[in-house]
Amino acid sequence: MLRPLFPRASRALRIASIPTQSRLALPWQGAARSYSVQAQAASSAKPLGLDASKLSIEKTKSPGSLGKPEELVFGRKFTDHMLTIEWNEREGWLAPRIIPYQNLSLDPATCVFHYAFECFEGLKAYKDQSGNIRLFRPDRNMARLNKSAARIALPTFEPTALIELIARLVRLDERFIPEARGYSLYLRPTMIGTQKTLGVGPPGSALLYVIASPVGPYYPTGFKAISLEATDYAVRAWPGGVGDKKLGANYAPCIVPQLQAASRGHQQNLWLFGEEEYVTEVGTMNMFAAVRDRATGQKELVTAPLDGTILEGVTRDSVLSLAREKLVPEGWKVSERKYTMQKLDEASQEGRLIEAFGTGTAAVVSPVRSIAWKGKTVTCGLAETEESGEIATRMKGWIEGRQYGDEEHEWSCVVA
Amino acid sequence: MLRPLFPRASRALRIASIPTQSRLALPWQGAARSYSVQAQAASSAKPLGLDASKLSIEKTKSPGSLGKPEELVFGRKFTDHMLTIEWNEREGWLAPRIIPYQNLSLDPATCVFHYAFECFEGLKAYKDQSGNIRLFRPDRNMARLNKSAARIALPTFEPTALIELIARLVRLDERFIPEARGYSLYLRPTMIGTQKTLGVGPPGSALLYVIASPVGPYYPTGFKAISLEATDYAVRAWPGGVGDKKLGANYAPCIVPQLQAASRGHQQNLWLFGEEEYVTEVGTMNMFAAVRDRATGQKELVTAPLDGTILEGVTRDSVLSLAREKLVPEGWKVSERKYTMQKLDEASQEGRLIEAFGTGTAAVVSPVRSIAWKGKTVTCGLAETEESGEIATRMKGWIEGRQYGDEEHEWSCVVA
Repeated sequence: MLRPLFPRASRALRIASIPTQSRLALPWQGAARSYSVQAQAASSAKPLGLDASKLSIEKTKSPGSLGKPEELVFGRKFTDHMLTIEWNEREGWLAPRIIPYQNLSLDPATCVFHYAFECFEGLKAYKDQSGNIRLFRPDRNMARLNKSAARIALPTFEPTALIELIARLVRLDERFIPEARGYSLYLRPTMIGTQKTLGVGPPGSALLYVIASPVGPYYPTGFKAISLEATDYAVRAWPGGVGDKKLGANYAPCIVPQLQAASRGHQQNLWLFGEEEYVTEVGTMNMFAAVRDRATGQKELVTAPLDGTILEGVTRDSVLSLAREKLVPEGWKVSERKYTMQKLDEASQEGRLIEAFGTGTAAVVSPVRSIAWKGKTVTCGLAETEESGEIATRMKGWIEGRQYGDEEHEWSCVVA
Repeated sequence: MLRPLFPRASRALRIASIPTQSRLALPWQGAARSYSVQAQAASSAKPLGLDASKLSIEKTKSPGSLGKPEELVFGRKFTDHMLTIEWNEREGWLAPRIIPYQNLSLDPATCVFHYAFECFEGLKAYKDQSGNIRLFRPDRNMARLNKSAARIALPTFEPTALIELIARLVRLDERFIPEARGYSLYLRPTMIGTQKTLGVGPPGSALLYVIASPVGPYYPTGFKAISLEATDYAVRAWPGGVGDKKLGANYAPCIVPQLQAASRGHQQNLWLFGEEEYVTEVGTMNMFAAVRDRATGQKELVTAPLDGTILEGVTRDSVLSLAREKLVPEGWKVSERKYTMQKLDEASQEGRLIEAFGTGTAAVVSPVRSIAWKGKTVTCGLAETEESGEIATRMKGWIEGRQYGDEEHEWSCVVA
């Protein structure tokens, strides 16, 4: 059963031809105004009128091609078009535009370059076996983008309008969605502050844009379990900080610990928190562990709670929901609670650590073989010949089943 | 006595004329390469060859003017030119260019927009009474920029080379430095990651640029003491985080607490840390308090220590140095130590809080009248008619004396 989630987009589209000479003067050049914004004015900014029906589309004159899907590398190739929507404090959201993929032209004083006024999302469009295009839980990404934007004084928007606009972009560039299982079109909604003054204050103008990148399976030849290094010298997030928001600010500081881990042969680092060494996240993924209770033998799938230091991952939520739906009836306990590296190590030593995996949009699930911690190697339940545990394998299957529409489910939205 | 700090710049300059058609194809467009960078390769990147002698200068064909200095607003107006230096992993630092102030043209997938690969500095050039141009402690800014860059896997550089290049820019645009006391040219060195792929990893290319903005006195009609609101619901920085680096990432998250404080009539927020409510920073300034000991009557100038949660302010360091030089002989104690809001409140109630002030490049010193904390108002030693305490006033005078060259001092470098 196909559900037309975006009826307006399918009938209300107006094609506006943009004159050639306007290409050099990009739309947001004019919007980056040259005066400082007063705090009071910006703080009263409301999500004014992101109106999908005002969309104009300028098609590229030099269409590209998908090329060989098997040569795709994550986030390197982009489709022909991009969606751009300008906002300014005075007018609110201006008319959305789909235009040829092109550079942004920004004043070097623009606040995104200096004060990291930037947040983003990552979601995917899939082609199902009937040729329909599907988005996976886009409402979740929209809600999170609004939370991220609000936390750094960028404007919020009407979620359904942006989903509708994204659907238009995806439909226009649909030939960039490879058809094979495991392939998809990665979508990157991004919002940046565009005010071009150096005073530190709320941006008086912003640009919301969406680019799209065809991507292949994260594990083209099947799972490959990764080895982690627990990071004890750097801290990703803090209560009262912004670690639960998808801000650019949370990413650049992650690279050096990642490089440090890589220099010692580990694929990712594992973020611990506090003297207790609570397990929080894996690189840029959420972390799950499946453990057996020492006393009762009760099997438990555990992940850190949303206490402000954990990114509210959409895949994390999907894994939790699926675990409650399918594993609890099998006798599993599913917990969002704090757990320490010490406890994980004890479980490992006592043979009670069944498996561990990271979750995220890029890989769906990423099985963990071992964690280097305090000079020792904490093994995570996999036999030497295994690349994934049973839970990770089943989760990937269940989630992809819904992503690709094998199982009709409310998480998957067909693009009309 | 004028000390020519930059002899090479004064004689080695080569003027390279850049063809007109190259203006649309900005130099960094080619450098933002479209492949992901391996961790190993980037981690071995060394500060290769930032060579000031390779500078080329393209002068603007439409020179602007300073206009009325008294109408200047911080960071809103910029000079005719900018300094740009590209870096890429393979070649290192390319030849520096001074070009007309112009927009940056960047692919929408560029990592600075997504993962906040960005850091910056703020320093000023002053005109002294003899017409010389002076920089204030630029070595400090260069050292800090290198620390900031390294923390987010951006390239480091040779500090003296960048000082020399900045001197060239300042000399070229010197007519934008107003001559009156209190005026200066604010310089904003900025480094951004320019790799145009969405994979989260060390940028394979970067752009270092410097723009310059003529600025007026922070307090044109004399000091104006500010009122602060202690922020207890958000945390700026934490041990193991990046709060001691001048990263864009530290700024966007500050705006909402600032707006919250403003909505209740306060000019800035005061960042506390931990259950102990240690006083850390004021908005985007360092914080100083002058207190008298309850038992001994000993006067003490105190500021939070550089424990990783405090920005290593150049003005902070200048205030500490001057206090040790000039206040210690008067019987003051000068301390870098943790102190709590509770202790500040006690001192205030007992009449032992002499004064408090923020320090930063923009305002030099910013006297604090009061702090709203836990529903009460902690007054900070000023009489109702006073806008500054004695220490803040003297500090401003001492620092400006060296900035404007009234007192010859090693902190002030004459641009040859």
